Amino acid sequence: MNIKITGSGSYIPDTIETNESFHNHEFLNSDGSNINAPNEIIVEKFEAITGIAERRYAKPHHNSSDLGFFAAEKAIEDANIDPETIDYIIVAHNFGDVKNNTIQSDMLPSLASRIKHSLRIKNPKCIAYDILFGCPGWIEGVIQAKAYIKSGMAKRCLVIGTETLSRVVDKHDRDSMIFSDGAGATILEATDEDGGILAHETASFTYDEAYYLYFGNSNNQDLCRDTRYIKMDGRKIYEFALVNVPKAMKTCLDNSGYGIKDVKKIFIHQANEKMDEAILKRFYRLYRTNIPEHIMPMSIQTLGNSSVATVPTLFDLVKNNKMKNHSLNKGDVVIFASVGAGMHINAIVYKY
Amino acid sequence: MNIKITGSGSYIPDTIETNESFHNHEFLNSDGSNINAPNEIIVEKFEAITGIAERRYAKPHHNSSDLGFFAAEKAIEDANIDPETIDYIIVAHNFGDVKNNTIQSDMLPSLASRIKHSLRIKNPKCIAYDILFGCPGWIEGVIQAKAYIKSGMAKRCLVIGTETLSRVVDKHDRDSMIFSDGAGATILEATDEDGGILAHETASFTYDEAYYLYFGNSNNQDLCRDTRYIKMDGRKIYEFALVNVPKAMKTCLDNSGYGIKDVKKIFIHQANEKMDEAILKRFYRLYRTNIPEHIMPMSIQTLGNSSVATVPTLFDLVKNNKMKNHSLNKGDVVIFASVGAGMHINAIVYKY
Repeated sequence: MNIKITGSGSYIPDTIETNESFHNHEFLNSDGSNINAPNEIIVEKFEAITGIAERRYAKPHHNSSDLGFFAAEKAIEDANIDPETIDYIIVAHNFGDVKNNTIQSDMLPSLASRIKHSLRIKNPKCIAYDILFGCPGWIEGVIQAKAYIKSGMAKRCLVIGTETLSRVVDKHDRDSMIFSDGAGATILEATDEDGGILAHETASFTYDEAYYLYFGNSNNQDLCRDTRYIKMDGRKIYEFALVNVPKAMKTCLDNSGYGIKDVKKIFIHQANEKMDEAILKRFYRLYRTNIPEHIMPMSIQTLGNSSVATVPTLFDLVKNNKMKNHSLNKGDVVIFASVGAGMHINAIVYKY
Repeated sequence: MNIKITGSGSYIPDTIETNESFHNHEFLNSDGSNINAPNEIIVEKFEAITGIAERRYAKPHHNSSDLGFFAAEKAIEDANIDPETIDYIIVAHNFGDVKNNTIQSDMLPSLASRIKHSLRIKNPKCIAYDILFGCPGWIEGVIQAKAYIKSGMAKRCLVIGTETLSRVVDKHDRDSMIFSDGAGATILEATDEDGGILAHETASFTYDEAYYLYFGNSNNQDLCRDTRYIKMDGRKIYEFALVNVPKAMKTCLDNSGYGIKDVKKIFIHQANEKMDEAILKRFYRLYRTNIPEHIMPMSIQTLGNSSVATVPTLFDLVKNNKMKNHSLNKGDVVIFASVGAGMHINAIVYKY
């Protein structure tokens, strides 16, 4: 028995937030001091490092569970299945539903319950729950689906990653420009077909790294100290990711029984263009091999970092031939990989 | 191979909040109107229905992840294992860490990452994640551990339920008296010993029931409409639970291969004394059998409803002979069962 993705969907919000829209922000250093550079230069530097020129924000009346619902509907349609036959709905996110212009996370009920409700699924044997696992949450949800299918507890799972990071950013922090909103979803099924999930690898680094991404105060010291935002130690994350992500990808690929030459596509979490490129370089260096052309599709330039949504969205775009120079063919060996808050890292080697 | 609980621990906060402490609250109806009764009568009626005389609140400087950490330490000690050998840390909660006198949920990083960090576990192969599944979250975590162990993805899991509901209650709502703080934890392991998890059952009812428990405004209409609290439609929940919990328990017991006469103890989520008693009555009625004495240990009278923490805490107390008329003997068949936000129901039949 193999486990394959039989359908995918993504929801990319219409609202485009360009880098120019940050030109009138008041950016501050984390200690509250002024940054000795005009915003135009700050934004230019930001784009040079992260590759982000624009990002997407959810419509004000949409919440994270709505985005996840939109992506799930498409995945179900793509898989051409009766939604009543889904055994598990697994939803990865980080902040729950955060209504526009409010600061509370609403996870009561969980987003999976909300999405199942919106999908109008009646079957109570369809189990709906949320996982919190940082940006690697969607990949981890797929790994959990694998556990249910392998153990005979499920045959068909819907795994969703959805996030509205625009609702939790500190406008006085340059890092706020990284984050965006979106959702991706896939149907995973037990199948007799060749291929599917060949291997997976997960690691949680918490000893020194637990708080590299954290919920912290605004750089503007005049704002309420009880209100917190997504914060990160970008430098530490960069160094951590560069050492550990290629390693996890290699372990996973080695366990899959396939070699580096078989890899046709790498779907990596869209955290930062420079970082992703450095990870790719290190990964291929581990195999003393040159990086093939068009191996790593990147959406960060226009979609930003939507956390759990980046990988399933990227996969959905490539699968549907919506990214230049990228396509998928039956039998292609691909890698999904992510890194994020926790700090967690995971990877899946998958035969399309 | 069987899956057994090899260690347990619980953390019951020292701070006792008696019913008398609510005598000076300003309770209002959900429409903001006054309740035509003195507080003494309101509180008395409350106790008659729910059975709750007092509840526990976490110390102001402790958060949900701290409580979970305290319980986890005890479970690890009880199981007498090296924490570095744990494959999964699964943490169930509903609101993340809510600092005292603040309204934001902090889940960045996830509580599992925080707890693993506090436990000083170095092994990156110990995977730490959170699940959101309402009050049945701890039982569902155990079921997820079963999936990992059955599928060969883990041998040893730490499953924690932790919650600080006192931080999310609306002081103007009588239901605020139900909720409390606490944490329970267990170690689950693959073993060749007899017994362990015999069967499980889970159901998610979201079609009509998704919002029976929800995040809503204060009954005091003068308070900020952007601040929300745990809210419930108690009547609907009561009716729902009465129909569906006994059914799920019966399905689970029937699948376990054991009969009603074999059941020695029922550990049910401490939501409401009257409701739990009514569920028990219905459950035994499904088997046309009388309810045996001392079958259902109850802690709600003094511990209140601490959501995900009630079942593992109750189990830990009985296992350690800390509840009058209750003990566990090797070979005893017991049932764990829960119901809560989602609405989710689950049950496990377990041979001690």
